[in-house]
Amino acid sequence: MLALRVDKKRLAIQNIPTPLPEGEALVRVVLSGICNTDLEIARGYAGFKGTIGHEFVGVVEASSNNALIGQRVVGEINAGCGKCDLCRAGDPRHCPTRTVLGIVGRDGAHAEFLRLPTVNLQIVPKQVVDEHAVFTEPLAAACGILERASITASDHVAVIGDGKLGLLCSQVAALTGANVLLVGKHPPKLKIAERRGIETSTPKQTAKRSRQFDVVVEASGAAQGFALALDLLRPKGKLVLKSTFNGTTEINAARIVVDEISIVGSRCGRFKPAIDLLKKGAVDVESLISEEYSLTDGVHAMERAAKRGVLKVLLRP
Amino acid sequence: MLALRVDKKRLAIQNIPTPLPEGEALVRVVLSGICNTDLEIARGYAGFKGTIGHEFVGVVEASSNNALIGQRVVGEINAGCGKCDLCRAGDPRHCPTRTVLGIVGRDGAHAEFLRLPTVNLQIVPKQVVDEHAVFTEPLAAACGILERASITASDHVAVIGDGKLGLLCSQVAALTGANVLLVGKHPPKLKIAERRGIETSTPKQTAKRSRQFDVVVEASGAAQGFALALDLLRPKGKLVLKSTFNGTTEINAARIVVDEISIVGSRCGRFKPAIDLLKKGAVDVESLISEEYSLTDGVHAMERAAKRGVLKVLLRP
Repeated sequence: MLALRVDKKRLAIQNIPTPLPEGEALVRVVLSGICNTDLEIARGYAGFKGTIGHEFVGVVEASSNNALIGQRVVGEINAGCGKCDLCRAGDPRHCPTRTVLGIVGRDGAHAEFLRLPTVNLQIVPKQVVDEHAVFTEPLAAACGILERASITASDHVAVIGDGKLGLLCSQVAALTGANVLLVGKHPPKLKIAERRGIETSTPKQTAKRSRQFDVVVEASGAAQGFALALDLLRPKGKLVLKSTFNGTTEINAARIVVDEISIVGSRCGRFKPAIDLLKKGAVDVESLISEEYSLTDGVHAMERAAKRGVLKVLLRP
Repeated sequence: MLALRVDKKRLAIQNIPTPLPEGEALVRVVLSGICNTDLEIARGYAGFKGTIGHEFVGVVEASSNNALIGQRVVGEINAGCGKCDLCRAGDPRHCPTRTVLGIVGRDGAHAEFLRLPTVNLQIVPKQVVDEHAVFTEPLAAACGILERASITASDHVAVIGDGKLGLLCSQVAALTGANVLLVGKHPPKLKIAERRGIETSTPKQTAKRSRQFDVVVEASGAAQGFALALDLLRPKGKLVLKSTFNGTTEINAARIVVDEISIVGSRCGRFKPAIDLLKKGAVDVESLISEEYSLTDGVHAMERAAKRGVLKVLLRP
């Protein structure tokens, strides 16, 4: 089968053997999405080697659960050991020996087929088209901010970064009834949020609103975004760090102590709330699709996804 | 009256007019304690100019509350506007226009007299001697970690830094029944914690216990302490940043996101729990007293307080 693979920062479409189920489920990929994490991995983040990609919708070809075969599914990307305390509590996202689809020790979704534990799969409701279902994983990640910060209707929330993640986070935050501001530099991207009734602003304009926000979500992955985020928080405010990026960031520890700021990291979210939102059509994911390519053009698609102004790039095997 | 004052990093004992109450309470200082924040302020932190010092026990000379006159008191150091939402909710610690005793816009405690709002004063129970009462403010700051992180008997907690703050934090954390490890480089200081049944370890030994702690309290104020603290946390663990220091620190943002770490700043705590602990004798503060000087020797006392191995230095006007 064809797969988009990385090895020591070299990215290529390769023909590799189709995986055998080996006790897990085998899924034929219908559509996969390129995430910024894929771009980071191709640059060497996490030292991954193999098939990249972790956002997909597909059809089950083999599974120990017969009822799943032939069903359209999405899949949670963390595969736990199934034995540790975390896994037994039903949350393998922090299992110390987990593999992660296309990120840690497990071939990913930019391929004709992938393998995941059956327990990771969730059926896609018929109302949700493939092009929307492929957003389940990033939308779940956006919903994950609500697992880490309580946001209520009286809160003022700023989301820094008008990329895919920022656009999803701002929409999810706005569903709580909170006053949400999306901060970004790209008018066409900001327009997507504005159409959902979300206020938008440039970083420069926003800098005037120092110490006015209860919660700030950093989704730009840039050091300046992080600094702005800290500055926007009121005392005792909460900064949700959302984007993974390489390297270190400078922080002003005294600001955190004196103003008793909280910084919380947020990675993956649970799929159920995301699937529910897609089913209700409560979040605009359609506007986030920029381009679609055949998997055979995967290397070019990755280049396109890295371009300024391009949002989600989809791959179809 | 005599006062230990700083102006543009110049520290000196000066003779200045005794303050008038001007609607607040006037307190004759009996004993004051030198905090590391005093040392930072003398180095230019916070740009403060005036009488330094914020840890004290004294006797009320004038107050709108007659019942307080002649009483032995300690005092909360944040003086709010009394009008904003925070002040009206009874917590002026984050009032945006607050003054802070010896730190922000208000002369401090290393003097013969000080002034504070009457509402800030709390009577010292007769069982608590002056030499212990003077620890109320730093002990309240240590108790403040429990306002920012829930610590239970099943938790593993590491406290980084065997200075005054680390010794107080480790004792407060141990009172919850949690398994507490104090990390430091000074055997005589570690001994103080060991006598309270607290496990101790050097930073080097502790580095082997990566990802084993639910809560880590950073009380060393050093960049290496911060890095070790992050490394010791299990996924979803909480880092309580306790010490204010100048400048910036590098953080690995990806670690915070991937392992969904929380970092929470903690500054001042409420006095009531600290006074209760002192009254019960539940915390050893006696062993933390290194030296006592007359206020007239204040400049020398500050030099001594900055020396390696020296813990609390007290000043008596």
